[in-house]
Amino acid sequence: MERKLAATNLPLDADRLWDDVMALADITDPKRPYTRRSFSPLFLAGRAWLARRFADTGLSVRVDSAGNLIGRLEGAKPALGVIAVGSHSDTVPSGGRFDGIAGIATALEVVRALRDAGTRIEHTIEVIDFLAEEPSEYGLSCVGSRGMAGVLDAHMLDLTEPGGETLRDALRRVGGDPDRLAAARRDDVRAFLELHIEQGIVLESQSLDVGVVTSIAGIRRIEIVFEGAADHAGTTPMGLRQDALVAAADTIASVRRIAETLAAEGTDYFVATVGILTVEPGAANVVPGRCRIVIDARTTNPALTRRFIDAVDRDSAEHAAAARVVRAPLVTLSDGPPAACDPVLREALRSGARELGLGETDLASGAGHDAAFMSRICPAAMIFVPCRNGKSHVPEEWADREAIAAGAAVVLAAVKSLDRSLPRNP
Amino acid sequence: MERKLAATNLPLDADRLWDDVMALADITDPKRPYTRRSFSPLFLAGRAWLARRFADTGLSVRVDSAGNLIGRLEGAKPALGVIAVGSHSDTVPSGGRFDGIAGIATALEVVRALRDAGTRIEHTIEVIDFLAEEPSEYGLSCVGSRGMAGVLDAHMLDLTEPGGETLRDALRRVGGDPDRLAAARRDDVRAFLELHIEQGIVLESQSLDVGVVTSIAGIRRIEIVFEGAADHAGTTPMGLRQDALVAAADTIASVRRIAETLAAEGTDYFVATVGILTVEPGAANVVPGRCRIVIDARTTNPALTRRFIDAVDRDSAEHAAAARVVRAPLVTLSDGPPAACDPVLREALRSGARELGLGETDLASGAGHDAAFMSRICPAAMIFVPCRNGKSHVPEEWADREAIAAGAAVVLAAVKSLDRSLPRNP
Repeated sequence: MERKLAATNLPLDADRLWDDVMALADITDPKRPYTRRSFSPLFLAGRAWLARRFADTGLSVRVDSAGNLIGRLEGAKPALGVIAVGSHSDTVPSGGRFDGIAGIATALEVVRALRDAGTRIEHTIEVIDFLAEEPSEYGLSCVGSRGMAGVLDAHMLDLTEPGGETLRDALRRVGGDPDRLAAARRDDVRAFLELHIEQGIVLESQSLDVGVVTSIAGIRRIEIVFEGAADHAGTTPMGLRQDALVAAADTIASVRRIAETLAAEGTDYFVATVGILTVEPGAANVVPGRCRIVIDARTTNPALTRRFIDAVDRDSAEHAAAARVVRAPLVTLSDGPPAACDPVLREALRSGARELGLGETDLASGAGHDAAFMSRICPAAMIFVPCRNGKSHVPEEWADREAIAAGAAVVLAAVKSLDRSLPRNP
Repeated sequence: MERKLAATNLPLDADRLWDDVMALADITDPKRPYTRRSFSPLFLAGRAWLARRFADTGLSVRVDSAGNLIGRLEGAKPALGVIAVGSHSDTVPSGGRFDGIAGIATALEVVRALRDAGTRIEHTIEVIDFLAEEPSEYGLSCVGSRGMAGVLDAHMLDLTEPGGETLRDALRRVGGDPDRLAAARRDDVRAFLELHIEQGIVLESQSLDVGVVTSIAGIRRIEIVFEGAADHAGTTPMGLRQDALVAAADTIASVRRIAETLAAEGTDYFVATVGILTVEPGAANVVPGRCRIVIDARTTNPALTRRFIDAVDRDSAEHAAAARVVRAPLVTLSDGPPAACDPVLREALRSGARELGLGETDLASGAGHDAAFMSRICPAAMIFVPCRNGKSHVPEEWADREAIAAGAAVVLAAVKSLDRSLPRNP
């Protein structure tokens, strides 16, 4: 760890940055820290606090029609367009204090550090808290960055949470305007930078300070339903069963085996997970009549996902036939392509890290991020900071004060360098 | 089906019997027929209706301290003791109209048929509606017959339903007396007979009228918990995962394979089912950190269950090690031994069927029944009648009017024959 700068030597205020992270963490459901679900009263309380911090920093504050909270500081040459820095303030249930939050606090600290140093950059700078990056109760993630990228469509707005409210109405409730979504679509952003905790163990295990993200894995979610017969567990002989769970269990084993094979090829990132399995009727004395599994497959190379799906399709059909159950056709619930990070922005981040004497490496991101949607409308890149044991989406998620500050200093350096070097006539 | 008697030739009123089944079926949660859960207001409404029917038939009616509803007709020689006939009036959620109900209506019709024929038997006869035969909200089945057999203990009374009510309080609420449970323990019952739908397809597939039950399978319920690590599904490489669901899925495959092997040995009945599987946290983007499965294993030969558990113990430990997760020791949730039906009573049922010209066969019961607990305190036997496609515990559960009436006629014949032939000095 000798590579790490003492936070006091950094050109920003590490304590001020840390205090923002902790203050936002305090706005949580007290019964299950750290929970600040998008669209909830707590989420709005967190945003109200953020909006005050934005305003205190001298930013003009607005919520765009896609529900993103945006703080804006006009540049010396506003015609040059916008350099945006941001992440998200919502959490998963019982999540952590850093996922998303560290990126928001970093964006704000970058603006404050520029101000404190008397540096007025030429580009306009925006601090963005994207709406609902985590999978929301409406079954959609990255709601705000989809909106800003112009790909939040009417079908998505019709999604409902379990209580019946549509995403359309929810968006209105948090200050967005579903009838004017086109207004959220941006063409004036020249660069987008996002700091995030790694949510993995590469940086920690290699004692590195920052990871410069090469590519954000595409995420494909596939649903498979097996329909058998919910017979009496006592009176149905083994040979007469149509047990949906047996077919689902064999398919889970196949998913694991196929994913391990593809990951072992080594050139591209590949992981696949069955995280959801439901059994109906789910009683000890009834043979499972229906099972549903959801597969999450991620890669930086879509060709691997195609091979994966072909193999799972074939294996699950065989398992269903063996268990004498019906397997429905595979349903793609969502399909986000991989997003390559911009080489110019990556180089700006890498140079910033080197100038600060930080240990850095290139890394693929297995997690999805708002930056993936931003990359559709502007050059976008990300920097990762280490988090303890790679744990994320859990209350014990942790990133050190110095680690976040070092990453923020890299973003600050990149913003200053990009302000000078970005093409002037894009 | 040519063997079947026209119901009009039977020594009882098939329509009257059928009408009772249908009348009780009407007392259901209208939103999810057919639901009359034990201890619920609907259950008590069903019992109030039954109590009136009992009284209309000339029976004296009481609820014993274990919550069983009992109609009693004194015999000509009450010192001979009791011949009891019965089943249960509660249902599983969204269950059927016949499971349990057909046995209650049969018991009542037997008494009415004796009365209509002017036959006063020497033994006292009792019609018993056992409390809560189906798994109740308190996590226990066969509550009433356990009580009558003297094996409902204080630990069981401390069980609570999700709302927090103890079984003790619930028992009081339905007219039982948990402080005087010993009073429910019977030593005066000389024979217990129960008619039930088969809940399987043997009788139907062989076009037989009745099955004379040889033995009621013992049921062992085993819980296995796998503890892994709930890591991010995007950022945790395949080789670093501790996926609890992978171990659970492999174990489900083992349970199936081992059960098929034991069942194929052929001499004894054996089935095993994984009907419950829970995944935590159960999110598409999180590697499963904890899985719990419940195995239901049934056999007429406890030696098979021991071999089964040894094999599952060994295999699941191997699967857990392969997935790098921790498997907790196997927990036995419940363990009911198999219950052999009484040979004398079986012969009385078999003779009755033959005299009526019905097609009969010996059958093991894979389902548990109140008769299993009654067999601990008196000779007990059961007769099965066919049910359509073997379906039970579902709304479409169905048994024909003539099928139930034929079975009831067998019970009637057996009651009359046992009244004469049972040992006089037991």
